[in-house]
Amino acid sequence: MKLIHDPIHGHIELDDFAVRLVDTPEFQRLRRITQLGFSYLAYPSARHTRFEHSLGTFHLAKLVRERNPEIEDGVVYAALLHDLGHYPFSHTLEILYPRHEENTKWILRHGEIGDLLRECYSQSEMERFFKHPLVSGDIDADRMDYLVRDAYYTGAAYGIVDLERLIRNLRWMEEKLVLLEKGVTAGQSLLLARAMMYPTVYFHHTARIAGAMLAKAVELEGIPIKEMRLMDEIDLVARLRKSEEGEVRELIGAIDSRRLYKRVVWSGEPVEEGLLGELRWELEAEFAHLALLDYPPRPKFEEKNAFVLVDGELKRLSDVSPLVRSLFELKDTHWRWGIYARADVKEAVRSFVSGIIG
Amino acid sequence: MKLIHDPIHGHIELDDFAVRLVDTPEFQRLRRITQLGFSYLAYPSARHTRFEHSLGTFHLAKLVRERNPEIEDGVVYAALLHDLGHYPFSHTLEILYPRHEENTKWILRHGEIGDLLRECYSQSEMERFFKHPLVSGDIDADRMDYLVRDAYYTGAAYGIVDLERLIRNLRWMEEKLVLLEKGVTAGQSLLLARAMMYPTVYFHHTARIAGAMLAKAVELEGIPIKEMRLMDEIDLVARLRKSEEGEVRELIGAIDSRRLYKRVVWSGEPVEEGLLGELRWELEAEFAHLALLDYPPRPKFEEKNAFVLVDGELKRLSDVSPLVRSLFELKDTHWRWGIYARADVKEAVRSFVSGIIG
Amino acid sequence: MKLIHDPIHGHIELDDFAVRLVDTPEFQRLRRITQLGFSYLAYPSARHTRFEHSLGTFHLAKLVRERNPEIEDGVVYAALLHDLGHYPFSHTLEILYPRHEENTKWILRHGEIGDLLRECYSQSEMERFFKHPLVSGDIDADRMDYLVRDAYYTGAAYGIVDLERLIRNLRWMEEKLVLLEKGVTAGQSLLLARAMMYPTVYFHHTARIAGAMLAKAVELEGIPIKEMRLMDEIDLVARLRKSEEGEVRELIGAIDSRRLYKRVVWSGEPVEEGLLGELRWELEAEFAHLALLDYPPRPKFEEKNAFVLVDGELKRLSDVSPLVRSLFELKDTHWRWGIYARADVKEAVRSFVSGIIG
Amino acid sequence: MKLIHDPIHGHIELDDFAVRLVDTPEFQRLRRITQLGFSYLAYPSARHTRFEHSLGTFHLAKLVRERNPEIEDGVVYAALLHDLGHYPFSHTLEILYPRHEENTKWILRHGEIGDLLRECYSQSEMERFFKHPLVSGDIDADRMDYLVRDAYYTGAAYGIVDLERLIRNLRWMEEKLVLLEKGVTAGQSLLLARAMMYPTVYFHHTARIAGAMLAKAVELEGIPIKEMRLMDEIDLVARLRKSEEGEVRELIGAIDSRRLYKRVVWSGEPVEEGLLGELRWELEAEFAHLALLDYPPRPKFEEKNAFVLVDGELKRLSDVSPLVRSLFELKDTHWRWGIYARADVKEAVRSFVSGIIG
Repeated sequence: MKLIHDPIHGHIELDDFAVRLVDTPEFQRLRRITQLGFSYLAYPSARHTRFEHSLGTFHLAKLVRERNPEIEDGVVYAALLHDLGHYPFSHTLEILYPRHEENTKWILRHGEIGDLLRECYSQSEMERFFKHPLVSGDIDADRMDYLVRDAYYTGAAYGIVDLERLIRNLRWMEEKLVLLEKGVTAGQSLLLARAMMYPTVYFHHTARIAGAMLAKAVELEGIPIKEMRLMDEIDLVARLRKSEEGEVRELIGAIDSRRLYKRVVWSGEPVEEGLLGELRWELEAEFAHLALLDYPPRPKFEEKNAFVLVDGELKRLSDVSPLVRSLFELKDTHWRWGIYARADVKEAVRSFVSGIIG
Repeated sequence: MKLIHDPIHGHIELDDFAVRLVDTPEFQRLRRITQLGFSYLAYPSARHTRFEHSLGTFHLAKLVRERNPEIEDGVVYAALLHDLGHYPFSHTLEILYPRHEENTKWILRHGEIGDLLRECYSQSEMERFFKHPLVSGDIDADRMDYLVRDAYYTGAAYGIVDLERLIRNLRWMEEKLVLLEKGVTAGQSLLLARAMMYPTVYFHHTARIAGAMLAKAVELEGIPIKEMRLMDEIDLVARLRKSEEGEVRELIGAIDSRRLYKRVVWSGEPVEEGLLGELRWELEAEFAHLALLDYPPRPKFEEKNAFVLVDGELKRLSDVSPLVRSLFELKDTHWRWGIYARADVKEAVRSFVSGIIG
Repeated sequence: MKLIHDPIHGHIELDDFAVRLVDTPEFQRLRRITQLGFSYLAYPSARHTRFEHSLGTFHLAKLVRERNPEIEDGVVYAALLHDLGHYPFSHTLEILYPRHEENTKWILRHGEIGDLLRECYSQSEMERFFKHPLVSGDIDADRMDYLVRDAYYTGAAYGIVDLERLIRNLRWMEEKLVLLEKGVTAGQSLLLARAMMYPTVYFHHTARIAGAMLAKAVELEGIPIKEMRLMDEIDLVARLRKSEEGEVRELIGAIDSRRLYKRVVWSGEPVEEGLLGELRWELEAEFAHLALLDYPPRPKFEEKNAFVLVDGELKRLSDVSPLVRSLFELKDTHWRWGIYARADVKEAVRSFVSGIIG
Repeated sequence: MKLIHDPIHGHIELDDFAVRLVDTPEFQRLRRITQLGFSYLAYPSARHTRFEHSLGTFHLAKLVRERNPEIEDGVVYAALLHDLGHYPFSHTLEILYPRHEENTKWILRHGEIGDLLRECYSQSEMERFFKHPLVSGDIDADRMDYLVRDAYYTGAAYGIVDLERLIRNLRWMEEKLVLLEKGVTAGQSLLLARAMMYPTVYFHHTARIAGAMLAKAVELEGIPIKEMRLMDEIDLVARLRKSEEGEVRELIGAIDSRRLYKRVVWSGEPVEEGLLGELRWELEAEFAHLALLDYPPRPKFEEKNAFVLVDGELKRLSDVSPLVRSLFELKDTHWRWGIYARADVKEAVRSFVSGIIG
């Protein structure tokens, strides 16, 4: 057993098996994957990593399981390992490579940590645990940890959630994670916190611009997935700094010294797919790495599996809470796409773009 | 100038005029009016008073005015004095007496604090200041202070608001208090915090029951408004304890030792007015002070005057934020009315009530 | 089992027996005894009461006992009840009446709560539990709660203690509460926090002056101990407001409206006992209730029973920590005695006093 | 003007000149120098960097200067830049290279940031500002920021300081930074917080072992000072990972996967200098990089320039506060030196060492 001090949860207790998992190179690598990618360029204090977030998720999953021992024990280790496959700067590079969930599975099939895990669980069991509502549901240990942790590290006031009340009021029944009525406000506050962290922190344009610059550098460098899988941020940045391509060195140098591209377009209006393809093609042809199109998928706030027990009856949280219902409407409000350009070509890009999208 | 230490705002600076206002008996009386009435029977730590809330409201109003010097200076003193007229246990007795706002005006017309105030402002100026959006608007200094303060003292996690960001982004323009776009999330979070504090704290049934018991005791004791106006909680409770009416002594004794009436009805379904009158009449006739009908007005979440400046144009916050819009829908969700009865007659009251409302 | 929400400890769980104890009139009375007496005249937000402090002390004692089940179970109820005998405004009136510990014992011998307690424990067992190091030691549950709680409510930054680390490192061995080496810094910080709260909060002159005024009023009113034993602050203040003695009404009125006496003497130099008696006598004879001598006992920071386990050997904390040792020296530093006088006779008192003590 | 969100201070305002300084590559490099070196191996959440600490120090210095406008304006920029010369992992490599203060001066003489600074201040002015008591005194902006920040990021409760009270009570007089009497407790708490952070965080053996391993790797790699001066942690770690020396790759690999050397000696007893030299020499000869001697200088808690104004007279804080005086005694208490060895040679090293120091 090992105790780890954590400013969010006080002390986190790791059992012996968790200690062995944490002590693998694959898990230690998470110490060098920042939780919020380039958000620290907007919130300098947001330097926390996937490592402490993973410990926190494990801790919360364990607290829920203590009150619901019918949950299989492997689920708490899935909570610990759910982010193992993140690439450097977290979600930033997922537009170039398979989603991190796929990479997690790959690592578990091939690495030292996978061997260790298979002492207790098969690969397919493990993959089932990763889908457990306590690990990836609407009100799961992952979100509980990251919202509170991200709020703590950024100083944004929106991620405050009454975790104790939430955890006391979660029950595992009929293969669902169900909120007791006394926990509805706390559950609601989790979803609201998430909705408010999006525009303030997660979609902050500064992080988005730096992310687009990094993705372009990686694309130009042409790093194959088999090399990327286990890279940490040191490997990646060092490689880009020493690239043989001048454009790559220029891009990473600009990120390093925070000389970021400027916004030419920043809009909440979706673009029709054909036009989008054309735009991407034309920009590329005309400006190469000097202009970047950033068109992220729309965030989803659909409710997957948040259930509430009201007078003995299971209901969907969205049926009980009009606020949660309104999060559907909200889902598009803060979504933005952008075109970013190096400061000196900003005006040229602007008129070129107007020529295409009018 | 005087410095007051406050756990919410750090240090509160009072200018000389504010010190003189605070040093009057009328203002000092607020030290003996609890902010949340009987909520401390559910949240024992919620023992804060209208006194420190008034100082906090003053402090925040002053911070907004520092950035918007066109706001008349009297407005910050209105913020300081806006709760002067509260009766013992805050809103509890407003069903028997004029609303506290009326009592505030009365006190200012008659007391030492009124004389002092009139050195600088006329009564009608003052009454105008009380209506200023910074004192009673949708996003006003009053709410900013009480939400954060009530969250702090109850330990409920829902009242957290990014006050600094909110204040930095409030502008006084066209006689309106306008939120800059950068402050929308902070403003939204204020309204959401309020919506979540209602079911959790402000409408807690324990406080409601004790409040109904107190109101009945005061009604039976028959205290005229002219005596009530300047009573503090010590005056009131001591008087009820020494009442000549046994029922009054019984009621206050039960509150003192937290032997509260039990809920016979607790419902979110409104009752038609005629039936409600009948119910009240019949209960009174049959059970006297042993059964209490508590039918509060519905809370209002309508937006009065929250404006946002978006691209140079004034918009209503509800037009910009679907979450705020959904607060309209929410407004009835947590409203409850109740019938409470002394434990030993609970079942008798229950069958009597079924006989009337079926 | 009952859950109570508390901003300091999150949720406090009360077992059934604790619920029954809490539900007695004697315990509910603690809701109307402020924890810090008149400190709220200096720190307006410090309105917490002995009630929530008692719950917090119980909670911490229970946490320590969970890790040390050899501690008798009655000790946690002693933690709950240790402050039952406090008079209105806590320590203020202990110069006129037996110490509150004596009053606690009296109440337990005579009240409803005593009957209840004797279902499980004899009076002598109970009195033994009150002396247990977990209830009244150098590092006890009482101090752990009040330091953190008083810091929270006053906003003073000095009462921060790492309670979790402290509790994890307390062991019951050889009839002693022993600190493991890993907990030494946390234990040290508790004693330091206490040393810093003294000058800042506990000895604040404003609270001292109001306390001396109240004590004089009570003395003049001549309330016998048998009436005082179970008074709460409402009883006492209401009685003084309605006193037949003009001086009593004047004193309580001045406290109510915070028109406090002024300091004529405020000194850290002790006075020889004979001279002190003379001073008291002469002041009384000349100025009656208009001048008050306040000469409190010196605070003790002696170490009673803080032990540390270092390499398997029990040592005194003061032998291990030079900082704790230095608290001995500190003990006198912040002690002050004073003479206070009504503003209009301040100068007269000053020259009269100089005539006596030069 | 630019606003930066910070969880410690809320919002930090940067004036235009500060923005230009921050936007240089030399300053941006601080984003990649962790504040506490390898402490994150013991406190995983301690991932903050010199960048945000520098902004915080600037912010606090500015707050002090606002109340003391006689302080030269360049001092606040010295506060901003005081850590510019830190090497990767902060103090870890200072045993191999000139102290970071020297490196700061060098960078200012040679870099883009130096050119910018010389638009306003000469090099010698700047060096004078670095020695200003507000930048490097006993109660300076540097300590105020790092104690509170390190406590926040580690979750250790010991760094809590009442910064607002401290800042309100600092006065610049007679070329000294003087504490008013009302600020003594706050000043004292700063020095105590520091004393308690040492054993708990700053001297944590895990960080010490990893630091010794890194220093050995760098020594073996033979990186000259002219390359080290402007390296960030990415440069350094990437270089060591790609070293041609197997020992270097082994050491950095062990740090990366947290397979740290074990303690063979961990002692508070100083060793006589001759013996120490012999020990170092013999260990090196016998075990090369497999055994590391770590003998840090003793920490200093001597008071340099903390002055208090008591009744109009300047006194040393240590003369006023016995607690501060006791910090002298404390200074050696937590100091430790160690010998660390790779797990597989631990016993061999142990018996070899006993052979030398008996």
